[in-house]
Amino acid sequence: MVDSLYTRLGGYDAIAMFATKVVHQAQKDELLGRFWANRGQDRLDSELQLLINYLVHKTGGQMYYAGREMDVAHKGMGITEADWARFVEIVGSVAGELGVKPTEGGEVMTFFDSLKGDIIE
Amino acid sequence: MVDSLYTRLGGYDAIAMFATKVVHQAQKDELLGRFWANRGQDRLDSELQLLINYLVHKTGGQMYYAGREMDVAHKGMGITEADWARFVEIVGSVAGELGVKPTEGGEVMTFFDSLKGDIIE
Amino acid sequence: MVDSLYTRLGGYDAIAMFATKVVHQAQKDELLGRFWANRGQDRLDSELQLLINYLVHKTGGQMYYAGREMDVAHKGMGITEADWARFVEIVGSVAGELGVKPTEGGEVMTFFDSLKGDIIE
Amino acid sequence: MVDSLYTRLGGYDAIAMFATKVVHQAQKDELLGRFWANRGQDRLDSELQLLINYLVHKTGGQMYYAGREMDVAHKGMGITEADWARFVEIVGSVAGELGVKPTEGGEVMTFFDSLKGDIIE
Repeated sequence: MVDSLYTRLGGYDAIAMFATKVVHQAQKDELLGRFWANRGQDRLDSELQLLINYLVHKTGGQMYYAGREMDVAHKGMGITEADWARFVEIVGSVAGELGVKPTEGGEVMTFFDSLKGDIIE
Repeated sequence: MVDSLYTRLGGYDAIAMFATKVVHQAQKDELLGRFWANRGQDRLDSELQLLINYLVHKTGGQMYYAGREMDVAHKGMGITEADWARFVEIVGSVAGELGVKPTEGGEVMTFFDSLKGDIIE
Repeated sequence: MVDSLYTRLGGYDAIAMFATKVVHQAQKDELLGRFWANRGQDRLDSELQLLINYLVHKTGGQMYYAGREMDVAHKGMGITEADWARFVEIVGSVAGELGVKPTEGGEVMTFFDSLKGDIIE
Repeated sequence: MVDSLYTRLGGYDAIAMFATKVVHQAQKDELLGRFWANRGQDRLDSELQLLINYLVHKTGGQMYYAGREMDVAHKGMGITEADWARFVEIVGSVAGELGVKPTEGGEVMTFFDSLKGDIIE
């Protein structure tokens, strides 16, 4: 049996580092930064942790995820095709930076692609 | 014994209407709007409800408030003296619009004033 | 247009009192008490507040309810037909004690009845 | 510099497995089982996850823990000296079963010992 994507990505710490780097790059991005601007540290930290929990849960790690589904969480944010394209670009770039292998990188991209319909408006 | 501020303001519905109007005005405000911009509807609705809960709790209504304290909730948002002055102006204007009486209006203002130190940076 | 059940029951305070009395009676009940036994005060207070929020929301008051749906919240608790019958009895007795009128009392009972399928196992 | 206890215990997965085994043993324990009895699956899963998050956070893993502090979470549960002694016994037995080394086992025990005052009544 093949290991879960969670395990093949390197487990919790690797996913937490991946999510942290993606969010930090998006936050500093000229186009995407508006989604993190003018928020308190507690909110920023909570939302990063929710993202980590979601990814751990979805890739097969032990995590009881009781947060919102993606459509509820993003409805009304006004996320565009261009925002999404930039975000996916950051995901790819961070995956490269962290040395994610082609097979796992492909699965990560396929996973994010499956969320697109629930997130953009 | 004097009634609680909660009761004298008209109870839950009056406080919910007050909070809703304050937040909607702040959201449309040129200076303050940035704190609500680019957020999803679920987050906006959750935070308005948290504000209602907090006010009901603090004025003496039956409400188990388990949200963040004001300092934790606002740390890092970069709220300035000018933001606060505008917010307090909106509070006063909505109180007037809703016919809050001078005694209760004074208590509301004193209450918000007591939060200032925890909220601005 | 007829007022919401929320308004006809007397609004937030009346519903909060109703929920509080129902829970306190259930908690002391020989049959039902097990669902509240050996829990901390914070958990008891949080769950009572969740019930109040749920009822305010469902009867038409202003309340953003972001808690679990009834089926998710109760799955695995092992609530039997007999438990439910006793609970409904307490609901009726508290409604009587608080002077809920027949029309509203009937609507409250119909409402609880609609939840039964999601709650018992 | 010495690695964090989190790392030395084996990271997230090891801590999640440790917490899961401890809770499952406590749940089946004649003395301690009452604290988990008559609860729904969602609540059991949520509380196990909170324990994992707390342990990951306290041992030095990346985790934004926004749950209750131990004293608030346990106040009113009626946890006795005997309950605590049994719980610590289970902690030690699970640590042994999972092959936690003496140094780390000692640190785990010291950590749990530091919580005792906040948890028993």
